[in-house]
Amino acid sequence: MRILVINAGSSSLKYQLFDMTNESVLASGRVERIGMDSSIVTHEPTDKPEVKDVSEILDHVTAVKRVIDLLVHPEHGVIRSMDEIDAVGHRVVHGGETFKESVLVDQDVKLEIRNLFDLAPLHNPAHMMGINAVDTNLPEVPQAVVFDTAFHQSMPPVAYLYPIPMVLYRRHKIRRYGFHGTSHNYVSQQAAELLGKPLEELKMVTCHIGNGASCTAIMGGKSVDTSMGLTPLEGLMMGTRSGDLDPAIVPFTMNKEDLTLSEVNSMLNKHSGLMAISGISSDMREIVDSMEEGDRNAKLAFDMYTYRVRKYIGSYVAAMDGLDVLVFTAGVGENSVQLRDAVCSGLSYFGVKLDPELNKQRSKQARIISAPDSRTKVMVVPTNEELIIARDTYRLVLEQEKQENYEI
Amino acid sequence: MRILVINAGSSSLKYQLFDMTNESVLASGRVERIGMDSSIVTHEPTDKPEVKDVSEILDHVTAVKRVIDLLVHPEHGVIRSMDEIDAVGHRVVHGGETFKESVLVDQDVKLEIRNLFDLAPLHNPAHMMGINAVDTNLPEVPQAVVFDTAFHQSMPPVAYLYPIPMVLYRRHKIRRYGFHGTSHNYVSQQAAELLGKPLEELKMVTCHIGNGASCTAIMGGKSVDTSMGLTPLEGLMMGTRSGDLDPAIVPFTMNKEDLTLSEVNSMLNKHSGLMAISGISSDMREIVDSMEEGDRNAKLAFDMYTYRVRKYIGSYVAAMDGLDVLVFTAGVGENSVQLRDAVCSGLSYFGVKLDPELNKQRSKQARIISAPDSRTKVMVVPTNEELIIARDTYRLVLEQEKQENYEI
Repeated sequence: MRILVINAGSSSLKYQLFDMTNESVLASGRVERIGMDSSIVTHEPTDKPEVKDVSEILDHVTAVKRVIDLLVHPEHGVIRSMDEIDAVGHRVVHGGETFKESVLVDQDVKLEIRNLFDLAPLHNPAHMMGINAVDTNLPEVPQAVVFDTAFHQSMPPVAYLYPIPMVLYRRHKIRRYGFHGTSHNYVSQQAAELLGKPLEELKMVTCHIGNGASCTAIMGGKSVDTSMGLTPLEGLMMGTRSGDLDPAIVPFTMNKEDLTLSEVNSMLNKHSGLMAISGISSDMREIVDSMEEGDRNAKLAFDMYTYRVRKYIGSYVAAMDGLDVLVFTAGVGENSVQLRDAVCSGLSYFGVKLDPELNKQRSKQARIISAPDSRTKVMVVPTNEELIIARDTYRLVLEQEKQENYEI
Repeated sequence: MRILVINAGSSSLKYQLFDMTNESVLASGRVERIGMDSSIVTHEPTDKPEVKDVSEILDHVTAVKRVIDLLVHPEHGVIRSMDEIDAVGHRVVHGGETFKESVLVDQDVKLEIRNLFDLAPLHNPAHMMGINAVDTNLPEVPQAVVFDTAFHQSMPPVAYLYPIPMVLYRRHKIRRYGFHGTSHNYVSQQAAELLGKPLEELKMVTCHIGNGASCTAIMGGKSVDTSMGLTPLEGLMMGTRSGDLDPAIVPFTMNKEDLTLSEVNSMLNKHSGLMAISGISSDMREIVDSMEEGDRNAKLAFDMYTYRVRKYIGSYVAAMDGLDVLVFTAGVGENSVQLRDAVCSGLSYFGVKLDPELNKQRSKQARIISAPDSRTKVMVVPTNEELIIARDTYRLVLEQEKQENYEI
């Protein structure tokens, strides 16, 4: 079975085509600047040269059509016809309280995703355009949706409710949802497998640290708390996001600087975090480089960032009353030797002891980087959100087929 | 030496008169509803019956005059004349970055407190009225100011800076200040004394839990992090304050509910916390009573509250990479057996083991409530902010007298 995974943004669309017989990627790529002048398509077939072209792509329907054309292209393609696409899986950021797991798309599901537009106004409408574009281009192909929030739906009310008037929860569904759930779920499973221990018996903190960043407390394989909240702004300091703040800073700053709601949102989401403190970059690699060249603001940004990761780990150790495994994943988590070293070096009380050599090794494999006598195991587990979307889609389609067989 | 301690609010003034020869309280009391119809004065001489009367007190000058009249009153008084008041100590909420310790009041100090009005618009102007009222009534008496923020000025930049544009720190001094510093400082000293160990060697988390609540990480006797921030809104869930939130909830709610800046501030400070979740009360005693009668919202409020205390303790264990002592203080911390039990029962990983009998004992003395084999010592230490203010004032006046002697 071949599954096309799509991550649709408001002006972009990323894709990967999987062959599920061996979970290999046949091709991946992205369409950028949809609806703008000179859209850019980058198509990367696994065993053929990359194709890049600039053309006019006015909407998501055309973007999906362009992707299919490239996938079946005689020269650049990887399949013979669009009939070879057996299912499509979409990443959807917000599943609200409705979606506790991945589902196949039907009219009800579409309606529910639409009902969640308010909670993810930048993301869910774009995902919906992606789903509709596939409907138009591949009307017979089943589609599944995989939610960033679903894994965190196991959180108990003490973790997901905010201490604000309950009417705000009832009326607007203001609560903690958490994000990066697909990734936290995947790396926790991989970590247990690599350790050879049942996930059910482990207390784990997973740190998904990319440009966005979140920590999750995972007990017995279930998310019991996570650092992102109603939106992906809460929690850790990030590339350009502030993370946690005194909430009073929001009205205080709006008043002092005469900011609108949208300006203060933009300040906290796009002009804060590493960028704001370092004055250099939102990219951890550049921060580390500048720090190693002696830049003091970069050092301050790095220290604040890693301090806040440590504090979240500590709070989740308290939440679970224990810690067996600490996992780093995503761009920065998988690649920054310095970040892992800085985070772990202050956690000896939690039985964390890195092996400096193992920490330094570059690899794309899941691996243990703690010393053999480290009470808490520290691991790097490369995340693969597209693969989980493909797997979930595959499973849902198979289940449906089985269901249909029974009904015969 | 006799020292009058004053805590002036915008429409209230609390006082205690200390005899520093034995740190005894000669009298205490409060003036309420200053500037409103029918102000209430409650005067409690230690060895005489309480006096309560209702009269018209238009301003702080009149309030201080009334207090002095009561202190020297032939029947209700405790001193013979106002000349027996040797110094006055004031509680001041916000000392900004200027005041790292208590100081004697002079013109420069008054100017600096005025410069901090912006950071504590509800408190500092009221304290200033108290200082000026003493100036008018007791022009020859030295005054000292003791700041809620001063103890936390030892925090490192990684703990006090927020990951937002640095211009906000430079322009408006937006940073973490922390509050309840006088209390955290006092109870940490008392705890070390009771343990018979040098404060310099201890890693401590102090939980000041009253209607307002904050946790502080204290290493070697110095505050290295604290849960309140720019304002007393950040951090723990409190009686009517939310504590930590996704900062995006502020603009989100303002938009959805069409709230002004002052309305959202009021919601988060006065209509959140225990009150919002329980729908019953902001008072932990009533929450516990209702919970024990089976009220589910009270139970939820209690569980959220204690969960958040546990998470802060965990984050500070990470910040200090260890924990020797956990201290509970203030109204709820000193008196709620249930709160201490709930907080501690999930912290066995940190070596916390309460002795249920010791936890249940009622006492006004500082005491250990952990089991003898508890790796981390848990203590209840009654706070006494007025006494510290009196002590600081006493010390500063003696130092100045010594200084003046040298100059002769």
